[in-house]
Amino acid sequence: MRELTWNKKFMSKLDLTCPIPKNEYDKVLLAHGGGGKLMHNLIEKIFISQFDNSLLNQQGDSALFEIDSSKLAFTTDSYVVQPIFFPGGNIGEIAIYGTVNDLSVAGAKPLYLSAGFIIEEGLPIEDLWKIVVSMKEAADKAGVQIVTGDTKVVERGKGDKIFINTSGVGTVYDGINISPKNCKPGDVIILNGKIADHGVAIMSAREGLEFETEIVSDLAPLNGLINLMINTSKNIHTMRDATRGGIATTLNEIADSSNFGIEIYEDKIPINEQVNGACEILGLDPLYIANEGKLLAFVDCNDAEEVLEKMLSHPFGKDSKIIGKVVEDHPKRVVMKTSIGTNRIVDMISGEQLPRIC
Amino acid sequence: MRELTWNKKFMSKLDLTCPIPKNEYDKVLLAHGGGGKLMHNLIEKIFISQFDNSLLNQQGDSALFEIDSSKLAFTTDSYVVQPIFFPGGNIGEIAIYGTVNDLSVAGAKPLYLSAGFIIEEGLPIEDLWKIVVSMKEAADKAGVQIVTGDTKVVERGKGDKIFINTSGVGTVYDGINISPKNCKPGDVIILNGKIADHGVAIMSAREGLEFETEIVSDLAPLNGLINLMINTSKNIHTMRDATRGGIATTLNEIADSSNFGIEIYEDKIPINEQVNGACEILGLDPLYIANEGKLLAFVDCNDAEEVLEKMLSHPFGKDSKIIGKVVEDHPKRVVMKTSIGTNRIVDMISGEQLPRIC
Repeated sequence: MRELTWNKKFMSKLDLTCPIPKNEYDKVLLAHGGGGKLMHNLIEKIFISQFDNSLLNQQGDSALFEIDSSKLAFTTDSYVVQPIFFPGGNIGEIAIYGTVNDLSVAGAKPLYLSAGFIIEEGLPIEDLWKIVVSMKEAADKAGVQIVTGDTKVVERGKGDKIFINTSGVGTVYDGINISPKNCKPGDVIILNGKIADHGVAIMSAREGLEFETEIVSDLAPLNGLINLMINTSKNIHTMRDATRGGIATTLNEIADSSNFGIEIYEDKIPINEQVNGACEILGLDPLYIANEGKLLAFVDCNDAEEVLEKMLSHPFGKDSKIIGKVVEDHPKRVVMKTSIGTNRIVDMISGEQLPRIC
Repeated sequence: MRELTWNKKFMSKLDLTCPIPKNEYDKVLLAHGGGGKLMHNLIEKIFISQFDNSLLNQQGDSALFEIDSSKLAFTTDSYVVQPIFFPGGNIGEIAIYGTVNDLSVAGAKPLYLSAGFIIEEGLPIEDLWKIVVSMKEAADKAGVQIVTGDTKVVERGKGDKIFINTSGVGTVYDGINISPKNCKPGDVIILNGKIADHGVAIMSAREGLEFETEIVSDLAPLNGLINLMINTSKNIHTMRDATRGGIATTLNEIADSSNFGIEIYEDKIPINEQVNGACEILGLDPLYIANEGKLLAFVDCNDAEEVLEKMLSHPFGKDSKIIGKVVEDHPKRVVMKTSIGTNRIVDMISGEQLPRIC
């Protein structure tokens, strides 16, 4: 009865109809967090439609705004990867590098990070310690400081070991203007190395798969590489890291934001042979598999060769390749020229291949 | 076997001994998130000791730093309150006002917020919508914008409906310097109203308790009130909002940071009679119960009356009271003069009275 009173009071404040009707979806599904169409639908209809403001609507990896005369970038990500320790890293490192990369691909120099922990009762203190030690190590490598934090503990069975949120603040480099909306026909698309390692490493850890050589996550801070790229050319129009949903999803998001078409070449996309084999066995498409150290840069065609050359000189760019270009044709669509000479539409997937990948 | 390999490789990087030995605590307990001694121990030994830097070590509610010539404040909090809808508010409103308040008590004007959602599979979309609508409403009331966000979904049983992290960026007001370390003997302590409403409202929602009049959370954005206070006096030395652990914990933290003693007067502390009664029945001490719209300001004694007067004119300060002062005696200790004339040491509690209060 009492509950009814305040629920009613509360509801009367909210005389708004939910934009996702019950007959479409009445509950949040795992796939709503998978990076695909369902997630985009949820974000657009629920979050963007309500929070609606020009900064949020930029829809980049970071929000960009000015305070006094400083141009700042601000971003957030919660990390729920499972397992929390995996080949090539752990949840703490992803939490640092992921947010460093989201600031970096927006053309910003990452400076300060926050860290919010949601810990499930019963997590071994030693595991927490390992995670925290490697977060510090990662922050040092990336040249950022963790300056503020928060700790919450939830009952056993109400969380999953540990979730970490990091938010980050950085300063945008002078003279550049990077946005998903800025690429244009003729722009060359550069990818900084082999795809799908992170997703396959996580999958193999979950399933106990064994490979001839160990497949490890590509987890890496990209700010050094990006700094080099930005110093080489002011004409990088768009840049994204290809995490959840893989390069296919990221390319689709950019095609959608820019209103242009994207063409990629299957035989140019770098992939580790063993990772490719694992994907075939598991029935996964590597284009949709998460990376944690891969970026896609859309560069003016006149500067592309020089940018590529610089990227090849950097440890996190040594396998860089030009994988495609922006075209006038098929606006908002990503088309792949396959190695057998056909065209394949690379659509955004509906749900997801691998939940809790980051 | 494979698992061993990479675990070993990983461990060799971390040749550091965990600063909380196994024979002390080997697992994270609920009480490690309760705001008391255990939480402070965890934060100091694990987080502060590793992340160690001058900005984190300020240990205020926000980190303060300069970028170019702008003085900025940056803060983060994850919200895990249970139930997610309660008398007087919901998790979305707490997530906005909590972070707005953390920026405000640091002497900053809150500007931009991030929002990171960790949703448990199965949450009704309508509940998410209600939360998001009231976050927008709260952001508008507080005059801030939600400019960047993230959505993760975890499997049923690996979360608890919804957790929200918000981080916030603001600009520090000119000419003030607020820090837990800045208060000094003679400073007057002002509290802006009645304590313990939030905790008792949550508790009554959980337990289905009924009172003559409904007890609702004191959840409120304090930036307007604080703006008024700062415009009245540049000599507010310390300010904190008294959330987890209540005013007792906040006062202890300040006594500890400043190395001075704190004296408070029991009969000056405002409390709703019904809330007090509920605490007695439930065996809870209201001094330790969470608030979501209460601040403690440590003001130079010459300015205190004027600040108090202004506070009384504001809706969120209409029950403000001077509740104590900073003293040279009993450094790092909080002592309460009781209504029967005795002295009671108000210590920091070890664990917590109410888990998941915010």
